[in-house]
Amino acid sequence: MIILKIGGSVITRKEEDEPTIDHENLKRIAGEIAESTHQKLIVVHGAGSYGHPLAKKYAIGDEIRNKEDLERKMMGFSLTQQSVKELNGLVTEHLRREGTLSVSIQPSSFILTENKRIKRAEIALIKRYLELGFVPVIYGDVVLDENEHIQMAVLSGDQIIKFLAENLHAKRVILATDVDGIYNKNPKKYSDAHLIETVSSLEQMETGEETNTDVTGGMGGKVSELLELLELKIESEIINANTEGNIRKALNGENVTGTRIKK
Amino acid sequence: MIILKIGGSVITRKEEDEPTIDHENLKRIAGEIAESTHQKLIVVHGAGSYGHPLAKKYAIGDEIRNKEDLERKMMGFSLTQQSVKELNGLVTEHLRREGTLSVSIQPSSFILTENKRIKRAEIALIKRYLELGFVPVIYGDVVLDENEHIQMAVLSGDQIIKFLAENLHAKRVILATDVDGIYNKNPKKYSDAHLIETVSSLEQMETGEETNTDVTGGMGGKVSELLELLELKIESEIINANTEGNIRKALNGENVTGTRIKK
Repeated sequence: MIILKIGGSVITRKEEDEPTIDHENLKRIAGEIAESTHQKLIVVHGAGSYGHPLAKKYAIGDEIRNKEDLERKMMGFSLTQQSVKELNGLVTEHLRREGTLSVSIQPSSFILTENKRIKRAEIALIKRYLELGFVPVIYGDVVLDENEHIQMAVLSGDQIIKFLAENLHAKRVILATDVDGIYNKNPKKYSDAHLIETVSSLEQMETGEETNTDVTGGMGGKVSELLELLELKIESEIINANTEGNIRKALNGENVTGTRIKK
Repeated sequence: MIILKIGGSVITRKEEDEPTIDHENLKRIAGEIAESTHQKLIVVHGAGSYGHPLAKKYAIGDEIRNKEDLERKMMGFSLTQQSVKELNGLVTEHLRREGTLSVSIQPSSFILTENKRIKRAEIALIKRYLELGFVPVIYGDVVLDENEHIQMAVLSGDQIIKFLAENLHAKRVILATDVDGIYNKNPKKYSDAHLIETVSSLEQMETGEETNTDVTGGMGGKVSELLELLELKIESEIINANTEGNIRKALNGENVTGTRIKK
């Protein structure tokens, strides 16, 4: 089974204030998925402009100060849940239109976190969808949290990948982003920056040199999660989804420019 | 805790070929819910024209004949799931706009049936949403089924009500439909038909006289589920949601014309 994560920045226009889908990119990516010869596949997508601005505005996951603040956050939860669900509907629909038997999976219906980390999630159903031949499409969402000081949390697509990869024993994880991978220096600042083809440890990235792990919206966090997967012998790769053919090739197991997380 | 079921025929236009929402009715009903003095509330809604035509077209729940038929049904599952999810999005949004802290719950993400009856469903999350003050909005959906001959099933809102009422110990169940309740004869045929104010057993309805249980799209099935709830000491009532004020009054515990299922 392969897990393909499609970054929110690939399918939405992050620079927009209002949730805006990148239909053209999404259609092309859905086509590449349909063309590929993957067997079992789970698609996880980020929230992009459908989630982050709302979750931030209502400070979901921050400590609740009083009853009024709780109600405001609950309203924000309701709004964010609906917005990311709309994005998921668009992704699921595009996939289906290109021929993939996509099925939508809503995290807030079955996942509970504790201090923002997944605590309980019944994944037998996802396994069953996969076995029947469906492609489950799951996404970054807001969920309930066991910590009574926060009650609600933002659950990132990246945390979902790790949880599913670990519990459903994924063979490979592919992170489709809007950059080629991890660089040794910020490529926007340094013309001699080069792509790191293989990452095997966090130390390797903490060489003192500036990498692009901070400038791309928490690539550092992504890499930590992927390195934890490596401990479970699940290899992953970061590729650029904006390069035509990359997702299809990666799903088919062909070589693609990018960063591999492997020993 | 009260469970309010809103029939698909109340919020969608069943006579339409294409899924069509009845915005006006939905807005009014959302307003009545917001105005009522209910404490904990779960809203369950039917699929109406967003679900039935598709589920029927693809014969979801019928025996799978061959691989081709399985794929066709899976495509139908994907389409139906998306369509009813859209309706749920509209209901959740209308409720929120009128001031209710609504949260969407997707059955196909956590419910598994066996021979079309709910077999497994983790409802701890729904309980948690309720305790925090949210109004969970759940709906008729397509779900996976353990019977390998059918693999997929249509899960009605009515079955969901019964399951939730039983497992979350509802105090009352209100069925908001497009008729006043159960009549002793089909009121469209017989001018002397009268409304049955109280139903305590199925026998009472099987008096040999023609009732409207058959002409209103399975009211008989609804009543059986409600009579099973009565065994668990959960009373219910069938009211007409098209009569202004009925839902608000029923939620407030006031008397409303309709049929009560009680001893």
